[in-house]
Amino acid sequence: MALKARVLYDFSSENPGEISITENELVTLFTEEELEGWLEGENSRGEIGLFPASYVEIIKDHITSNTNNNGLSSPKSKAVTPTHTSYTADTQPQRGFGAGSGGSGGGSFHTSHGSDDDWDDDWDDSSPADAPQGFGTTPPLYPVTSSLPGRLQSTQQHQHHHAKSSGTVGRNLNRFSTFVKSGGEAFLLGEASAFVKDGDRICVVMGKHGPEWQEDPYPFTCTIDDPTKQTKFKGMKSYMSYGLTPTHTNIQVNRRYKHFDWLYARLVERFPVISVPHLPEKQATGRFEEDFISKRRKGLIWWMNHMTSHPVLAHCDVFQHFLTCGADEKAWKQGKRKAERDELVGANFFLTISPPSVVLDPQEVESKIEGFKTFTKAMDENSVAVNATINEFARKQASGFKKEYQKVGQSFKILAQAFEQDQQAYSAGLNKAIAYTGDAYEAIGEYFAEQPRQDLDPISDLLDIYRGHLANFPDIIHVQKGALTKVKDCPKQEGELHNRCNIISCATLAEIQHFHRTRVRDFRSQMQHHLQQQISFFQKITAKLEDALQRYDDDQ
Amino acid sequence: MALKARVLYDFSSENPGEISITENELVTLFTEEELEGWLEGENSRGEIGLFPASYVEIIKDHITSNTNNNGLSSPKSKAVTPTHTSYTADTQPQRGFGAGSGGSGGGSFHTSHGSDDDWDDDWDDSSPADAPQGFGTTPPLYPVTSSLPGRLQSTQQHQHHHAKSSGTVGRNLNRFSTFVKSGGEAFLLGEASAFVKDGDRICVVMGKHGPEWQEDPYPFTCTIDDPTKQTKFKGMKSYMSYGLTPTHTNIQVNRRYKHFDWLYARLVERFPVISVPHLPEKQATGRFEEDFISKRRKGLIWWMNHMTSHPVLAHCDVFQHFLTCGADEKAWKQGKRKAERDELVGANFFLTISPPSVVLDPQEVESKIEGFKTFTKAMDENSVAVNATINEFARKQASGFKKEYQKVGQSFKILAQAFEQDQQAYSAGLNKAIAYTGDAYEAIGEYFAEQPRQDLDPISDLLDIYRGHLANFPDIIHVQKGALTKVKDCPKQEGELHNRCNIISCATLAEIQHFHRTRVRDFRSQMQHHLQQQISFFQKITAKLEDALQRYDDDQ
Repeated sequence: MALKARVLYDFSSENPGEISITENELVTLFTEEELEGWLEGENSRGEIGLFPASYVEIIKDHITSNTNNNGLSSPKSKAVTPTHTSYTADTQPQRGFGAGSGGSGGGSFHTSHGSDDDWDDDWDDSSPADAPQGFGTTPPLYPVTSSLPGRLQSTQQHQHHHAKSSGTVGRNLNRFSTFVKSGGEAFLLGEASAFVKDGDRICVVMGKHGPEWQEDPYPFTCTIDDPTKQTKFKGMKSYMSYGLTPTHTNIQVNRRYKHFDWLYARLVERFPVISVPHLPEKQATGRFEEDFISKRRKGLIWWMNHMTSHPVLAHCDVFQHFLTCGADEKAWKQGKRKAERDELVGANFFLTISPPSVVLDPQEVESKIEGFKTFTKAMDENSVAVNATINEFARKQASGFKKEYQKVGQSFKILAQAFEQDQQAYSAGLNKAIAYTGDAYEAIGEYFAEQPRQDLDPISDLLDIYRGHLANFPDIIHVQKGALTKVKDCPKQEGELHNRCNIISCATLAEIQHFHRTRVRDFRSQMQHHLQQQISFFQKITAKLEDALQRYDDDQ
Repeated sequence: MALKARVLYDFSSENPGEISITENELVTLFTEEELEGWLEGENSRGEIGLFPASYVEIIKDHITSNTNNNGLSSPKSKAVTPTHTSYTADTQPQRGFGAGSGGSGGGSFHTSHGSDDDWDDDWDDSSPADAPQGFGTTPPLYPVTSSLPGRLQSTQQHQHHHAKSSGTVGRNLNRFSTFVKSGGEAFLLGEASAFVKDGDRICVVMGKHGPEWQEDPYPFTCTIDDPTKQTKFKGMKSYMSYGLTPTHTNIQVNRRYKHFDWLYARLVERFPVISVPHLPEKQATGRFEEDFISKRRKGLIWWMNHMTSHPVLAHCDVFQHFLTCGADEKAWKQGKRKAERDELVGANFFLTISPPSVVLDPQEVESKIEGFKTFTKAMDENSVAVNATINEFARKQASGFKKEYQKVGQSFKILAQAFEQDQQAYSAGLNKAIAYTGDAYEAIGEYFAEQPRQDLDPISDLLDIYRGHLANFPDIIHVQKGALTKVKDCPKQEGELHNRCNIISCATLAEIQHFHRTRVRDFRSQMQHHLQQQISFFQKITAKLEDALQRYDDDQ
């Protein structure tokens, strides 16, 4: 008897190999075993393919036998690639990136495409063939499924077992593994092939702390001006435009959020083992609201800083086009088309990497990767806890702290009022001083309420940004682990296979090292900023109190 | 039919004219009208006299006629003296002083005597005839009833009417009015008589702001050392002893609390229109507990400062004896006996006063006194409100504020812990700095919890002290008003009566002015202290944060 499952939520197939399922529909499973959160089976319309395991509920009573209908469902005949841990505790089915992006961060093609109606309704006037809409019909190269099903830990347990049982270096039968989709597998198997110009070459060098991206010989930064509101169609449509001025050209270009979004999609596609940070979240409603715009701008500034300080991302063609192409529509479209037709994406990206001369010890690589996994898990979890605490602290300062200081201020004023009942001239100075002290306390209450915006919110924002950043790494690790596992399982120790695996490892470790360096830089600077702000804050309070204290002297 | 009342609480007669009544007993009332909170009637044992109106409940059904049994109960034949407003909202029957003394402050003879078993079980070895126990049998001269019944406002309403109906300058028939008990009436009627030495003469001079006590030509202060625990009877009994060192002798004397208490009783008896501040409260249990001792010591220090800065109190014989008599038992007893036999108490006190040459305008005096009444009411009420607020603020700092800063501190440490998962050497400095910042926040939490002791508690204590101080003034005002009313009601404008009334007014206004001057001094200095402490507090926080900030530099 076939294994059945009831569909809990509607799921629309968006990629080849997936099938659409509808709530309450009964589907037949080929196996109970999940492949990285996906199950394979047949829907009521007779279509065969994959759907997210968390979208269905297996009907246990029906399990009597487990008929293997095809190779994919047989534990013995398939190789499951190593997988990763999802950092989001959220097991609700959702697309796009997990933490930080809030489900609307843009990033995968899917998101970029799906939200066009909200944001990008006035994408440029080129024909549909040029536009990113076209991507919906081709399989995405990068992590569409990264945070989709939240059950990866259980699959990880039997993954090891299955990997061992795969005796040949063959294709990975899970066509939706990140390892496969990123092009990692194809590269490892020697199937990547493209012409790499010298300008595209990316060097990984051996630094003091392991492999790292070669230092940027032409570092630059880029400022982002306050966005301005622009209108078109005689005011019917409006959008925000950001003025960007890179230091290496010092010429301002104007870019809209959708341009950032387009750039992001290009970068994700282009760099499988580089963490391209999420863009600050979109917000369809109230997008001109001041707070939101300011927050997004801060997010964009961080994003831009991250981009310009990343030796690889900073100098890639598509980013340079984005930063330097002026108002010339034709030039813009040309660069845009070129980027969209870039061959060095996915598997071919790895062709651009020049590793250091020393080959890495695979065991050491594995241990470093494991250490980083532990780190990211701890950082993600603790960031959530820290953020909850500091947000609560900010709330308390705006409510309780402010209220307490204001109540004390008011009570001093009440005391001064009572004292004013005494008409003696020598009393007047004291009464004024006490009332002034009351005002000072009320002002201090306001200071407390306003302070978190200066020194707690930025930490909270940075933690959010980093949680989004962290969410990129499971896929990066996945690619590296996939390569390592494949090489381990290879009976003949082919030199080329090792070399290609080493390239993937070098790139991954370089990116991890870059992550740590920017993390240390960002958190140091944010903590310094926080403490400086707190110091100014308490100094401002002290000055206010000193001012009040002086009123008692005037009165002697 | 006689008017009846049911007794709600036991009341023991302690002064002549009072009768004891027992809960649930039925008493016969001679009139429903209260005399400053007292009712006159007959108890079930046939004793006739006064008891507190708030201790009984009149049985309304029984009121049919109102038989006047004696002169006291007839509204037409008696003169009720002007009365005062009680500042305590508390209408529970209790003895002793109201606000500030907490019912055990010592002050009246009653309290001093009644609590001997708790505190003064080892009063000196003199015979019972010498000891204050004897005072229970003589009528108290001063405000035993000051805060006893809480219903004075209603009596005040008909007081005016009755005062008008008294057509002759006769004796006040309410033998328990403060005006009568203080000796004010006797003095006004020219019945006071005693020999006044030059040294006992008290001058009221006309200052810029009205009558004031002549400035002290020999000002001094007196320090109070930390109390030490003494034992007697081979350690069976223990008590605390305070070392006092007045600046004008610079010789330390040792005094126990009971000595202060005895002194207080003498002063109250001696100075009818001077506010002798209450002693800090006694506490029978846990009296060696550190906090209590420290708080009482602070209270004693304030009390001593008030005493030494009061031109009249500072130089009176009994206080000087208290401050300067050494360990010589005989000399102590001699001075003690002399003070207890002082003739210049009550009515005779007024004989010691030399008024300024200009006679005061009675209307102006009345308006000043009314203004002061308004002031005291406002100050008392607002002190309660202020105290509630700052005590709540202190509580919040010790709980909520501390907790919030500590939670933030802990969350920074959690962040540092996550970062420690990264073993890169360049990360270590930042991790340490963040953990250090966490410690700094925890320390700041402690600072917040400890701070109220430095700058809020002292204000709260001062407000309490002043509430007790304020509670003395209704009686002082009462004496002055009694005199003024009596003079107004006098058909023949006797010059001597006016002069004696002027003396009472001068002394009252001088004392009021002294109150304001010390109040302004005390509150200015306390507010300055508060602000200085707050400034130090925020500077301490700033320093802590600056210290933490520096850790990030070390690490560059």
